[in-house]
Amino acid sequence: MIAKCDMCFASYAKERSVMDFRKYIAEFIGTLILVLVGCGTVVGFTTLAGELGLGGSTLTLVSVVIALAFGISVIIAAYSVGNVSGAHLNPAVSLAMLIDGRMSVIDFIGYVVAQVLGAIVAAGMLVVFTGSRASLGTNGYGEASAMGTQVGPAFLIEVVLTFVFVLVILGVTAKAEFANIAGLVIGLSLMAVVIVGLPFTGTSVNPARSLGPALLAGGEALAQVWLFILAPLVGGALAALVHRFVLAPGYLSDKK
Amino acid sequence: MIAKCDMCFASYAKERSVMDFRKYIAEFIGTLILVLVGCGTVVGFTTLAGELGLGGSTLTLVSVVIALAFGISVIIAAYSVGNVSGAHLNPAVSLAMLIDGRMSVIDFIGYVVAQVLGAIVAAGMLVVFTGSRASLGTNGYGEASAMGTQVGPAFLIEVVLTFVFVLVILGVTAKAEFANIAGLVIGLSLMAVVIVGLPFTGTSVNPARSLGPALLAGGEALAQVWLFILAPLVGGALAALVHRFVLAPGYLSDKK
Amino acid sequence: MIAKCDMCFASYAKERSVMDFRKYIAEFIGTLILVLVGCGTVVGFTTLAGELGLGGSTLTLVSVVIALAFGISVIIAAYSVGNVSGAHLNPAVSLAMLIDGRMSVIDFIGYVVAQVLGAIVAAGMLVVFTGSRASLGTNGYGEASAMGTQVGPAFLIEVVLTFVFVLVILGVTAKAEFANIAGLVIGLSLMAVVIVGLPFTGTSVNPARSLGPALLAGGEALAQVWLFILAPLVGGALAALVHRFVLAPGYLSDKK
Amino acid sequence: MIAKCDMCFASYAKERSVMDFRKYIAEFIGTLILVLVGCGTVVGFTTLAGELGLGGSTLTLVSVVIALAFGISVIIAAYSVGNVSGAHLNPAVSLAMLIDGRMSVIDFIGYVVAQVLGAIVAAGMLVVFTGSRASLGTNGYGEASAMGTQVGPAFLIEVVLTFVFVLVILGVTAKAEFANIAGLVIGLSLMAVVIVGLPFTGTSVNPARSLGPALLAGGEALAQVWLFILAPLVGGALAALVHRFVLAPGYLSDKK
Repeated sequence: MIAKCDMCFASYAKERSVMDFRKYIAEFIGTLILVLVGCGTVVGFTTLAGELGLGGSTLTLVSVVIALAFGISVIIAAYSVGNVSGAHLNPAVSLAMLIDGRMSVIDFIGYVVAQVLGAIVAAGMLVVFTGSRASLGTNGYGEASAMGTQVGPAFLIEVVLTFVFVLVILGVTAKAEFANIAGLVIGLSLMAVVIVGLPFTGTSVNPARSLGPALLAGGEALAQVWLFILAPLVGGALAALVHRFVLAPGYLSDKK
Repeated sequence: MIAKCDMCFASYAKERSVMDFRKYIAEFIGTLILVLVGCGTVVGFTTLAGELGLGGSTLTLVSVVIALAFGISVIIAAYSVGNVSGAHLNPAVSLAMLIDGRMSVIDFIGYVVAQVLGAIVAAGMLVVFTGSRASLGTNGYGEASAMGTQVGPAFLIEVVLTFVFVLVILGVTAKAEFANIAGLVIGLSLMAVVIVGLPFTGTSVNPARSLGPALLAGGEALAQVWLFILAPLVGGALAALVHRFVLAPGYLSDKK
Repeated sequence: MIAKCDMCFASYAKERSVMDFRKYIAEFIGTLILVLVGCGTVVGFTTLAGELGLGGSTLTLVSVVIALAFGISVIIAAYSVGNVSGAHLNPAVSLAMLIDGRMSVIDFIGYVVAQVLGAIVAAGMLVVFTGSRASLGTNGYGEASAMGTQVGPAFLIEVVLTFVFVLVILGVTAKAEFANIAGLVIGLSLMAVVIVGLPFTGTSVNPARSLGPALLAGGEALAQVWLFILAPLVGGALAALVHRFVLAPGYLSDKK
Repeated sequence: MIAKCDMCFASYAKERSVMDFRKYIAEFIGTLILVLVGCGTVVGFTTLAGELGLGGSTLTLVSVVIALAFGISVIIAAYSVGNVSGAHLNPAVSLAMLIDGRMSVIDFIGYVVAQVLGAIVAAGMLVVFTGSRASLGTNGYGEASAMGTQVGPAFLIEVVLTFVFVLVILGVTAKAEFANIAGLVIGLSLMAVVIVGLPFTGTSVNPARSLGPALLAGGEALAQVWLFILAPLVGGALAALVHRFVLAPGYLSDKK
């Protein structure tokens, strides 16, 4: 998750080299881990709760488990593949990096394709593990929301939560002294964002994480997935603008 | 949350410059994130628990979720806007920084105004998200306390918990070697303070965090908010005095 | 929690100076925070559970909350007063530091007195907060153990858990490169030790933490407190011997 | 958990020296801590749940507690004995280190023997503590799985989860700047892997952690333990190959 502008532009110049290919594999593996661990926890515990005939209190229980799993999955990816690709794992993060000038357009496209493929393969693995497509950790609004949150507030919530999540990513990766703990901070941040959004939308803040499971689940999840692609991209773009033009530490660097 | 005395005094000298304005924006955004994520979790899970007809055991469940959300919201703010403003997010913290000589009076006023505005806007967003002002994560004593804690013990509890919380902030920001983990330590500390205070008062330790939701909720929450403004300020001031005159590491610096 | 042998011996030479006094105040405040936050969480949530008529499942719920509170209370103390005293907060830790040659006998006595006083004052504050001495987070065996663990296994469990807890303290404070995260590691370690021991003995691993609440609670808690003083001291001493003679990194330093 | 290739080869040359013996003792103590804290939490809370007649929702509760305990037990081992042996604690990790060229064959054998002995002794201590061999935190598939996961998917799940866990170990120990937080990252990673796998297999990802309790529990646990030895070794080996030939940071070192 460490900003590597020099590497980004270097890779732009030779975007068909072997090195690029490695970065895309890293994003593929990282996003696969994110969806496998995060959505896999949703699948395991909600399936189990259903089999045991558990009632509503399980949802609040499971929310801690799900938030821990999503948050730590980002920590795993950050410290395993982050060294190669920066571990974006999320088209909204890659869009913010593009707007903040830390990534080329070609790499942006390569990253997003790798992220979506990783999410699809992970969702497929969950289908194999459970033998079912019934519960894949998809996001939703209206009747698919635990609180019955309608499409308007759901869109706003995803924009705001993605804004918060991407703002901390841009901030913590912008200072060299945070390099060794950036992955921890970003993982913890996703934990909080997942917690706050779970009762409303199931928390996407990541188009790839929503699209992979939705493609395999089909039905309502697929019909609603547009919101969980569009809103995170809007939130990520807004965070990049606020970071660059309001908070960017480079602006203050001559004062220090 | 890093102590920046040089910057503080510099900003004092030119308190109407563009740079000051950025610091206040940073405090506004940071406190908005704190209240949005922290109180937003209270709102989501207690609304959901009510809709599902869940009983008392939910409170203990939700306490972990709420504590995680508040604690990590401070981590998010520390690593996203902390670079610009130090991420006080809390008038009691700013008062302690003022007493400890790390902040000017003008900046103190600007910070507190920005913090209160951020908390109000966040509470307003929660009203939009849920379409209700019924549960905004307000604090309370007497009948508004889960344990029925009366006004006297409630005041003492808020003083003591704020003392503990601000003492760790002053300690961890006073040593350069803790700079990169200060945000993590402070966020974890808020987590523990939120846990211990939840059954008694709902844990304020932050006048802005209490005032924002109380203004929109009105009624008893607004009538009781004086305690959650006054007690944290007393606790923060006591922590600053103990830190400066009893524990201040500068006192021992010639021994190292 | 950082090893400061030089300071220890320096303080030994002038054990009646103002500086010593500060260290003892730091241990007093730190242990007060530990018992206030840790046992305060036990008090709040078990009182609340009793009022709401909750059954046995609450215990497992509360265990996470209690473990988080105890663990983070050590993190708070480590980063607020650790700079002055090393934040032992625990006679078993101080005994291990004494055996490992990092502390003088005079300081050991001063630390233990300050720790016990801090624990007593914290227990007194909890009595004021709740208006009751019924539940102060005391430890116990036999009928006072959730699992009915008898005195023999209870003694063994406290020895082993203290051994584990003190071993990680000695290890993580022995390397300079861990200085900034030692407090986090030690707090997390206490979290795990509290979790594993809760169903058996309520987890002491700290004579001061057990003695303070037991003195105010009286009765069976006071009659059983000998085990929670003796067993942690045995465990701490064993950890110091294993660290010093089997694992001590100094032994390998010429190989690096 | 820090890569120490020089030390590995040095130890290879004098594998019968006192120093080797210390490394094996460190692995023995570390794995003993892992099984004692991790499986001890399973034992305590499931025994307690059974005595209290708790139903299915306890499983989801206990899952958080168990995941915290396993994850932090690795953190404890990493910062207490990691300095001496690297704190593998797991034959699948040692196999990956062997394949990645960071360990000699002799040391691999010594480590695995020490790990298995540590796990057996820890399981024996749990039998003493509880006076029962009924619940020792064993792993299982089919009827022994909470979700009834069959042998095929169970094998795949253990391979994939071990792959993820070992990949982050190899990544985070390969960069010097992560040295002080590697233990934290690895512990958190185990936490997530334990969470996701609990409903399926109880999560092994570690042949020693499964073999120790299975030997003392006997019966079905012992009959199924082959899967929890074989699958983690396959997952660890795959991670080592992907790390070395796809992601290895040394490949990019000339670009930095």
